[in-house]
Amino acid sequence: MTFKDKFASAVEFSGGFVCVGLDPDMQKMPPFLAEKGSAGVREFLANIVEATAPFTAVYKPNLAFFEVYGAEGWPLLHDLMAVIPANKVVIADGKRGDIGNSARFYADALFNGLNFDAATVNPYMGHDAVKPFIEREDKGAFILALTSNPGADDFQFSGGKKKLFEAVVEKAVEWNQFDNLGLVTGASRPEYLRAIRDIAPDLPLLIPGIGVQGGDLEAVIRNAFRGFPGKGVINSSRGIIYASQGEDYAEAAGAAARELRDSINSCL
Amino acid sequence: MTFKDKFASAVEFSGGFVCVGLDPDMQKMPPFLAEKGSAGVREFLANIVEATAPFTAVYKPNLAFFEVYGAEGWPLLHDLMAVIPANKVVIADGKRGDIGNSARFYADALFNGLNFDAATVNPYMGHDAVKPFIEREDKGAFILALTSNPGADDFQFSGGKKKLFEAVVEKAVEWNQFDNLGLVTGASRPEYLRAIRDIAPDLPLLIPGIGVQGGDLEAVIRNAFRGFPGKGVINSSRGIIYASQGEDYAEAAGAAARELRDSINSCL
Repeated sequence: MTFKDKFASAVEFSGGFVCVGLDPDMQKMPPFLAEKGSAGVREFLANIVEATAPFTAVYKPNLAFFEVYGAEGWPLLHDLMAVIPANKVVIADGKRGDIGNSARFYADALFNGLNFDAATVNPYMGHDAVKPFIEREDKGAFILALTSNPGADDFQFSGGKKKLFEAVVEKAVEWNQFDNLGLVTGASRPEYLRAIRDIAPDLPLLIPGIGVQGGDLEAVIRNAFRGFPGKGVINSSRGIIYASQGEDYAEAAGAAARELRDSINSCL
Repeated sequence: MTFKDKFASAVEFSGGFVCVGLDPDMQKMPPFLAEKGSAGVREFLANIVEATAPFTAVYKPNLAFFEVYGAEGWPLLHDLMAVIPANKVVIADGKRGDIGNSARFYADALFNGLNFDAATVNPYMGHDAVKPFIEREDKGAFILALTSNPGADDFQFSGGKKKLFEAVVEKAVEWNQFDNLGLVTGASRPEYLRAIRDIAPDLPLLIPGIGVQGGDLEAVIRNAFRGFPGKGVINSSRGIIYASQGEDYAEAAGAAARELRDSINSCL
């Protein structure tokens, strides 16, 4: 199945546009799980996935939160992949970007080693850093365009009439030969989403920054989803997976995912 | 010891400005080692390090080449760190870059988990993506400024009078509060190294792209090292570690490292 078809089917099957960010932080997960170490992380992730799956199209583990477990990181990722239903899209959020020769190894590790469907990729190094992630129809990449963090102001708006993030979006459209390329566009600056949609109406967007990072859902939907063929998914990490630190953590995460799904649909 | 002092001492002790890139590629290493799998990689790296150490200030494992080994990647990195002499600077070449909350986990994994001295960092996401790597005096970061790959043309020269790579260099100088920040500047465009030195005469440069990627050593030294306090190191990966595929691979790597050290010194 092509990446494009899998993405569309994941959205349809879950009834919405939710991406759940899986960032297992010992300091934030229920203490009775954190004290069990990596076994607790494994249990936490499996229960979060089970509870959120009916309302979730896409899962997005952030690799930083696995690498920090050292030698246990890869087995944790491997076991996480095994509990995610096969009809979900899973994005490796590692923001990789290196010269072509190295990028091929990153793509191999994520796509062949762990069977991810897609990866987030940093555009700074240009086309040869992106290519290994988009040369197969069944795998995809989301390129960082406009991010939701404070540091986005440092460089992403640089340039003259055409800002850096707009130049990145233009190149992404040009590189999208296999309909497997999307964009990471932060929710915290909804006013710029329309500028991105003017260039790329068809690309799926991965939109972080709702919730903890403060984005306005209605403005995001209006500027980036409503009326555009590409749509995409809206990511929530902490707002869903840490909805409760109690015994009801999984149930609370499921309820938060469902609420996000329904809120998005009611804005559409 | 501060990062700055350790770097200066590593250069002095090795008598030069050589960085050896450790990119263990099964297709390129001696076949009699590759056929032993990860045990062969471990042996390869240990022998390369032993043979090159007298002439090498800095080692730079590229994380892509370890992640591709899956669950064996972290133990390989761990064992590599154990055979590198303590007075060498070791840079984790992962080109990481994520929002502050995630970047802290990347820095923790590399600095505390594996005891790297520094990491390469991608500037696209701005200051909060860089900060966790430079907030300790004993650890450092090399920010991608101008890279040596073909894709560097896509965005790094964008902007008006001030190009993106120059804006990055300006910010790096501003962020360098602990004298632990350097720049990645490719050897394949030596004419722009002078523009970088005009902005940042004091920052150490990590210069890849000599050898396989085609940079001109004399022009690099003239534009970026000679007369500048910052200097830095010149990296060679494939040109050193794959100098021979025969039984003499380690000896050949040592000879190539010595030759690079002496060539740099004779240009200075």
